[in-house]
Amino acid sequence: MTPPDKADAPDEFELIAELFAPLAASAPEALALKDDAALHAPTPGCETVLTIDAMVEGVHFLPDDPAESVARKLLRVNLSDLAAKGATPRGYLLVTAWRDGTPLAWMRDFAHGLAADQKIFGIQLWGGDTVRTPGPASFTLTAIGEVPAGQMLRRGGASAGDGLYVTGTLGDAALGLMVLQGGLEGLGAAHRDDLEGRYRLPEPRVAAGMRLHGIASAALDVSDGLMADLGHLCAVSGAGARIEIERLPLSEAGRAALALDKGLIEAVAGGGDDYEILFAAPAGSDAAIAHVAAETGTPIVRIGTVLPAAEGINPVDGAGQPVALKHLGYRHF
Amino acid sequence: MTPPDKADAPDEFELIAELFAPLAASAPEALALKDDAALHAPTPGCETVLTIDAMVEGVHFLPDDPAESVARKLLRVNLSDLAAKGATPRGYLLVTAWRDGTPLAWMRDFAHGLAADQKIFGIQLWGGDTVRTPGPASFTLTAIGEVPAGQMLRRGGASAGDGLYVTGTLGDAALGLMVLQGGLEGLGAAHRDDLEGRYRLPEPRVAAGMRLHGIASAALDVSDGLMADLGHLCAVSGAGARIEIERLPLSEAGRAALALDKGLIEAVAGGGDDYEILFAAPAGSDAAIAHVAAETGTPIVRIGTVLPAAEGINPVDGAGQPVALKHLGYRHF
Repeated sequence: MTPPDKADAPDEFELIAELFAPLAASAPEALALKDDAALHAPTPGCETVLTIDAMVEGVHFLPDDPAESVARKLLRVNLSDLAAKGATPRGYLLVTAWRDGTPLAWMRDFAHGLAADQKIFGIQLWGGDTVRTPGPASFTLTAIGEVPAGQMLRRGGASAGDGLYVTGTLGDAALGLMVLQGGLEGLGAAHRDDLEGRYRLPEPRVAAGMRLHGIASAALDVSDGLMADLGHLCAVSGAGARIEIERLPLSEAGRAALALDKGLIEAVAGGGDDYEILFAAPAGSDAAIAHVAAETGTPIVRIGTVLPAAEGINPVDGAGQPVALKHLGYRHF
Repeated sequence: MTPPDKADAPDEFELIAELFAPLAASAPEALALKDDAALHAPTPGCETVLTIDAMVEGVHFLPDDPAESVARKLLRVNLSDLAAKGATPRGYLLVTAWRDGTPLAWMRDFAHGLAADQKIFGIQLWGGDTVRTPGPASFTLTAIGEVPAGQMLRRGGASAGDGLYVTGTLGDAALGLMVLQGGLEGLGAAHRDDLEGRYRLPEPRVAAGMRLHGIASAALDVSDGLMADLGHLCAVSGAGARIEIERLPLSEAGRAALALDKGLIEAVAGGGDDYEILFAAPAGSDAAIAHVAAETGTPIVRIGTVLPAAEGINPVDGAGQPVALKHLGYRHF
């Protein structure tokens, strides 16, 4: 772990010793954070999967978001990428760019969030860098996972005739953001809390993802919105798709929101930040998929079928009639 | 590569296609930047070395620093960490947090800097994330290297009696920063340029570093300043050291600066940003070290000896008399 740069606030060594060393204590890879590098002995027969994502204050999180949930979201967004690759997470590297004057209590909460999720997902901190910034805080995380050689799930690989499946429920994060922005006032408090929680804290499908290699033909995690990410999967696979909108899995709170306003289906099909796994699997995979679902306690439902590329992407209703969706996913940048 | 977030400026896909895809084109690990993750097949018998470092505008580089040198410095600082571990660099992940309104030309120069160094160091971009920020620009890079199993160089491992060696020359970056800040006016223009260049563009000792495993007993790269980093090496190794200040290797420009002001030895022994490798090696290693130096065209000189911990760290002159140094390395944070 490279020492942080000059600032007024806490001493660098105190900071590393108090906040980060405990997160790395049981990882031999971290070399006790004393070596400016991590050392990973790859598991024989496995390949290494690496992913990196950043979050910037005011762009990816709000200045008054709890530090604990900011940290956990950063970690979970990266774990979701690994899950969609069929990889087992092993560890992570972390860069914290603290805004000048960040209270130590905020940093502590940030570290507590990581500690909580390390227990849940069975990973540790392997290393990092701590810097100061005069601007908004930002955090960057590299997650490292492993997958049996040749088995990594990719976006390409779906073939016409494959089923399309999704884990968990869709739209909760997009609806949760609406709640946070003062919308969905007609919804009960418990449902509002549920949705808000799903926005703040995604549930990366790690346990299911790491069992999907050998079953799925293509996969990705839904971060831009179902329809946009389906578009990515189909583009790279050279395929089209039929999506049965009425099969999109909804949480209880999501169902309550749609009961108030049917138009919110747009948020379910097009909103982002779901961090569920969308995958394709060849005909005959249903038993294996049901087994993964049961074994990991992860809801998985079939929502459509891969078509030849020339068919395009077709959202349909229960009668097979086209459904017009206004926007097909959150357009970044 | 995760798509960048919403902003006015260039379209995300154009940006990735124009700037980053060419940097990843010949790396199978990058999966054409289409999969939100990189896939690395570890070399059998090798372990993976990972390091991460960030640079923030206004903290680690100046707003008017050339984009090309900012990019190259970021890459080289990370490669220096790998070199000091004895690792062969394989690839890197990059997060760019562009400040809103960053001109496309600046981004292009940044990418050109990476392209130039990729050729020099034989590595490619494996993946990354592009985000926008309302604050200062910041860049984070994870470098991935490999080392034969069990051979990674560490800070710990130096024993009393080992020789202490350093690559290249010391102090140039610290003196170069003085030049950039308007100091060292008595120095000739060519020397001023040399020093400034060494500040902007460190020379990571990759070729030498990857040949030092099996020879060195401990190593690190000099980033905080020789005396501070020697302190780190000794602390982790449980050792002391005698450093012969008159043996510290100087560039021609460095010698010219010291001829003007002997007190600048403080910048040589205590300044940072050298990115040379400081290492210890057991008695009898001189021939092997000379071979590495010759084979890689890297100057390597012996500057001292490891002592028992109780002896402390002792800078001495040519007659073995103690030399008083005011500050023992740049104190971050």
